[in-house]
Amino acid sequence: MIIVMKRGADDAQIGTVTKAIEDAGLKVHLSKGETQTVIGAVGNEAAVRSIPFEAMNGVETVTPIQKPYQLAGKELHPEPSVFDLAPGIPIGGKHIVTMSGPCSVEPGGIMMEVAKALKQCGVQVLRGGAFKPRTSPYDFQGMGEDGLKLMAEARDETGLALVTEVMDPRDVELVCRYVDIMQIGARNMQNFTLLKEVGLADKPVLLKRGLSSTYKEWFMAAEYVMSQGNRRVMLCERGIRSYDQTTRNLFDAVAVSVAKDQTHLPVVVDPSHAGGARKWVEPISKAAVAIGCDGLIIESHPEPAKALSDGAQTIALDQVPGLLKILRPIAEAVGRTI
Amino acid sequence: MIIVMKRGADDAQIGTVTKAIEDAGLKVHLSKGETQTVIGAVGNEAAVRSIPFEAMNGVETVTPIQKPYQLAGKELHPEPSVFDLAPGIPIGGKHIVTMSGPCSVEPGGIMMEVAKALKQCGVQVLRGGAFKPRTSPYDFQGMGEDGLKLMAEARDETGLALVTEVMDPRDVELVCRYVDIMQIGARNMQNFTLLKEVGLADKPVLLKRGLSSTYKEWFMAAEYVMSQGNRRVMLCERGIRSYDQTTRNLFDAVAVSVAKDQTHLPVVVDPSHAGGARKWVEPISKAAVAIGCDGLIIESHPEPAKALSDGAQTIALDQVPGLLKILRPIAEAVGRTI
Amino acid sequence: MIIVMKRGADDAQIGTVTKAIEDAGLKVHLSKGETQTVIGAVGNEAAVRSIPFEAMNGVETVTPIQKPYQLAGKELHPEPSVFDLAPGIPIGGKHIVTMSGPCSVEPGGIMMEVAKALKQCGVQVLRGGAFKPRTSPYDFQGMGEDGLKLMAEARDETGLALVTEVMDPRDVELVCRYVDIMQIGARNMQNFTLLKEVGLADKPVLLKRGLSSTYKEWFMAAEYVMSQGNRRVMLCERGIRSYDQTTRNLFDAVAVSVAKDQTHLPVVVDPSHAGGARKWVEPISKAAVAIGCDGLIIESHPEPAKALSDGAQTIALDQVPGLLKILRPIAEAVGRTI
Amino acid sequence: MIIVMKRGADDAQIGTVTKAIEDAGLKVHLSKGETQTVIGAVGNEAAVRSIPFEAMNGVETVTPIQKPYQLAGKELHPEPSVFDLAPGIPIGGKHIVTMSGPCSVEPGGIMMEVAKALKQCGVQVLRGGAFKPRTSPYDFQGMGEDGLKLMAEARDETGLALVTEVMDPRDVELVCRYVDIMQIGARNMQNFTLLKEVGLADKPVLLKRGLSSTYKEWFMAAEYVMSQGNRRVMLCERGIRSYDQTTRNLFDAVAVSVAKDQTHLPVVVDPSHAGGARKWVEPISKAAVAIGCDGLIIESHPEPAKALSDGAQTIALDQVPGLLKILRPIAEAVGRTI
Repeated sequence: MIIVMKRGADDAQIGTVTKAIEDAGLKVHLSKGETQTVIGAVGNEAAVRSIPFEAMNGVETVTPIQKPYQLAGKELHPEPSVFDLAPGIPIGGKHIVTMSGPCSVEPGGIMMEVAKALKQCGVQVLRGGAFKPRTSPYDFQGMGEDGLKLMAEARDETGLALVTEVMDPRDVELVCRYVDIMQIGARNMQNFTLLKEVGLADKPVLLKRGLSSTYKEWFMAAEYVMSQGNRRVMLCERGIRSYDQTTRNLFDAVAVSVAKDQTHLPVVVDPSHAGGARKWVEPISKAAVAIGCDGLIIESHPEPAKALSDGAQTIALDQVPGLLKILRPIAEAVGRTI
Repeated sequence: MIIVMKRGADDAQIGTVTKAIEDAGLKVHLSKGETQTVIGAVGNEAAVRSIPFEAMNGVETVTPIQKPYQLAGKELHPEPSVFDLAPGIPIGGKHIVTMSGPCSVEPGGIMMEVAKALKQCGVQVLRGGAFKPRTSPYDFQGMGEDGLKLMAEARDETGLALVTEVMDPRDVELVCRYVDIMQIGARNMQNFTLLKEVGLADKPVLLKRGLSSTYKEWFMAAEYVMSQGNRRVMLCERGIRSYDQTTRNLFDAVAVSVAKDQTHLPVVVDPSHAGGARKWVEPISKAAVAIGCDGLIIESHPEPAKALSDGAQTIALDQVPGLLKILRPIAEAVGRTI
Repeated sequence: MIIVMKRGADDAQIGTVTKAIEDAGLKVHLSKGETQTVIGAVGNEAAVRSIPFEAMNGVETVTPIQKPYQLAGKELHPEPSVFDLAPGIPIGGKHIVTMSGPCSVEPGGIMMEVAKALKQCGVQVLRGGAFKPRTSPYDFQGMGEDGLKLMAEARDETGLALVTEVMDPRDVELVCRYVDIMQIGARNMQNFTLLKEVGLADKPVLLKRGLSSTYKEWFMAAEYVMSQGNRRVMLCERGIRSYDQTTRNLFDAVAVSVAKDQTHLPVVVDPSHAGGARKWVEPISKAAVAIGCDGLIIESHPEPAKALSDGAQTIALDQVPGLLKILRPIAEAVGRTI
Repeated sequence: MIIVMKRGADDAQIGTVTKAIEDAGLKVHLSKGETQTVIGAVGNEAAVRSIPFEAMNGVETVTPIQKPYQLAGKELHPEPSVFDLAPGIPIGGKHIVTMSGPCSVEPGGIMMEVAKALKQCGVQVLRGGAFKPRTSPYDFQGMGEDGLKLMAEARDETGLALVTEVMDPRDVELVCRYVDIMQIGARNMQNFTLLKEVGLADKPVLLKRGLSSTYKEWFMAAEYVMSQGNRRVMLCERGIRSYDQTTRNLFDAVAVSVAKDQTHLPVVVDPSHAGGARKWVEPISKAAVAIGCDGLIIESHPEPAKALSDGAQTIALDQVPGLLKILRPIAEAVGRTI
């Protein structure tokens, strides 16, 4: 950690800072410049991270050097993680996992129809929302446990793994009873109560990036889950907020590269939410595969215009095989399969 | 609602849209332009809001006209709301309510010391965090119920009202047993599970704006709470994310004006989080009072450099009277007291 | 154009709006809703675009329907443009054009060395800055005409085309005497004086997107150039400003797709500025090729650590062949060559 | 300057960095931590600022300590600057200068009418655009020199000082012949050619902040002007780009405080562009005065709905006295006059 003192900071102020560092068991390196003093705290930064140096008199800036996400980070785990989403469905390796299905689980036979069609074209995971985080309290809030049951039936029939969002810490157990993968939505990325709860469960977690979260916040959210014991976390880039509303969100392609540079976790891309309209799903998927994602999660529905939510960004079920056909040569071009 | 069709949209596509509008009980106004057709849906927009027009073939853009926040909005409630935070402490009227105290509740006699000092200079509400949403799982997570007890003792002694953050829907009942006002933190602004839970409780809610939430999302979060029955919601501007990290967040002064233009709810400003450093607390507070806030929530501590969290943005307890002295003439200049 | 009136707007206010529309030669379609009146202006929107409807009493919102960029847009020119950057170097077709070279032109034989090496590995355009837009007035400002001469010598020897930035409208003639393509930098994207001047010249223009310009502003900047007569404009995505400074800018991959959806102009990607560090050049280039760019402009230098500017984001000259080798199969996978 | 080396950086890499520092005449302070080495460059940072340390092998991050804006900064000029905009019109002192007038200069007697009315209510500077930076090439581009003449006549009659935007470096001399203050628009904040040109002129400069420029970029733009000799620069906050388009831009109130914390230059606020609609002019002006601005520049027009540009954000001329009346007690509350 590097602490830069203000011009004119006096010896007493410098002493307060250095004492705090030494009390925490780190060594102090002092550089007195012509105009300003710079203090280095050498050793394990975790021991000084919570000291409020910025609040001490005479301190101008405080710059951490070490990464605070020890479990998610690559320093102690340099190789990329590969783990199973369900038996026979590893993520993080050569094969790019595809996940698809409707935004909301719907009554009737739709989940089964979707699952069968997706299975046929090589999709490995069925998505569907039983608990829906809707911007308006008056919108459809999801089918709840009845929806989970419909998903489980579709799995039993097709062998697809299941992913669904969990919003309430009280639902974690219930959700784990039915599905294979728990999704944390973008709006809950810093719902620390929920992160801790899924960290105690024994199912992989798909952690969506917050609407405008920094990379560090995203990786720290993964750290929250992992610190409770659950190490099977996937990061999911789904677009961030920006100033141009031509697309619903701004797809941050380089987030995949940054996540792979700084963590060992698999990275999934969600082109449906990133673009917010059907026509952007294909181009975003192409860029995602080329830049190195480990998975894609794509909203699909037999009739998007009748979907209970997110219809505009949902592709038709019969478009899925064509999309995968377009993506395959790109995957091969970067040494992967899909 | 205005639906603009793409160039070349055919009659069948236009018909699908108009049928959906009419089926929902609204009237259709059709404008066939030289190049594009524009369809107006006339009537109560709530009935068509969840129809996925964007997913229909031939549709280019969909623009809502009516505000979706009926309970928070001014259309049905044009006068500003005034309600009691605790007996004798109304918010939304002429007097600007001040709330202050440390970021985290701390053990020992500090809460009592703070409460007595704040009471003396006219502060009306004591803040303190018993459950802390920390970016790192390794940081201090708050004292929990023990902290709430320390706060309650301070209230019993001084008569200050109490505000504290609630993060877990399972804690709402507990928190309500001890404090007067529940705070929803910025990271939980779209934690809909939590919003619904506090909406069922009988205590006022201080709803912080999300890190980069739009005005509409903020007002819809208030609507979530209100739709459950709890109408005592305060909006709290606490700075949004921006590209310059000189300040921790970007204080959006005009958010106060927009909130007052579009809702009837009282608006509180949090200069501590908005600026993220002690030196910005005074200027932000001055702007907030001048632009019309109904309350200020300011972090203070006897010794900020020893605070358990947020020390850098916390002012010293003995700076509070001076700050209020500076703010009083500004409040008077805009017809208020503080 | 759709004009939504406020609740309670009276007939006189509505009349003022409709009269202005009719006076401009357009037809009025009026929808009186239960609470609000909506006015459609049907016809050629160009005639009403500069009328300040928002300033009229009773007006709530004004929404244009037609695109204001007639020359850049696809409505009148649905096919993608293909044009020559120099004889035998078309852009916009099947082949993706690569442009490379140092940020700043440097004295000595470096430009010649770079040009020869780039020529060998298939690069078609040599880049180099003779006039440098530096954030600090104390930084190296470029070699000026002497730099242009060094570039011209390198072209004469190798046959590469030349691209360089022009910053001053008074330099346009000079720059055109030496190089093949004029670059407008991101900071000058809305320097309308300069845009008009390059619009009068007879060389292609590489128009970089502004630091946080909207798509519409970008396309309108192209329109400025084109409105003066010069139709050979390339759009260049080079990253936009965002809140996470891990990368210098935020690469907006989808900007390529949006530009191709709404204009007929070729789109170039600049991975060097988008990422701001050498290690992001490869992943951004991969995503750019996969998503459909027509060109790449990449900073390279024999010894980046000795470059006069932008060393951190410059790749070593001997890395260029390896990068192109990685990109070729991706280009093929999307039906292109590079 | 602090240079943090990557984990595993070897002695040769460290040596390259330290040699470069020493060659530039600064001293090296080396801290070898457990995992990473930190190198401090002690002395006048200006000498190392252009060395591309980031491009050297083994370097992770480079953090400057000293401010690069020596002329604009407070380090060498701790007292706030006060200077005359025209004889008898100082800015930067106790009195807050008001500037007003239409967005565009218009033909006929309007400038004279506006000037007389503004003079009467205490406004000191007349604004008007003769050269207009319009997003569309098809919009009204300004009256040019004829407009300047109309402004000059209004000054001769009323004694108001004049401010107008200059967009073209070739127009600086012409503009200086007619007006007292040159305005650099937001879109030209990093038009370095133009900045240098106005830096050579002998009239004060009103430097608007770029659409999304950082504080440092803004202060460096001032440094560009000042480095040419012209020290009379005013900074102007006019709102920045954000993700919520309810207001045209996002008014950054704290920019005033940051500018005063880090520079000695007077700071002006433009509530018209910051809010983009008439109704936000009053609240923004109130916040601006309370937070410490030295001037306000407000668009006004006898009939905003007929203004040639920016009508929606222009207040009616007869609203100006009322606005000033509201602002006066706030100014007094913070020890100023207006």
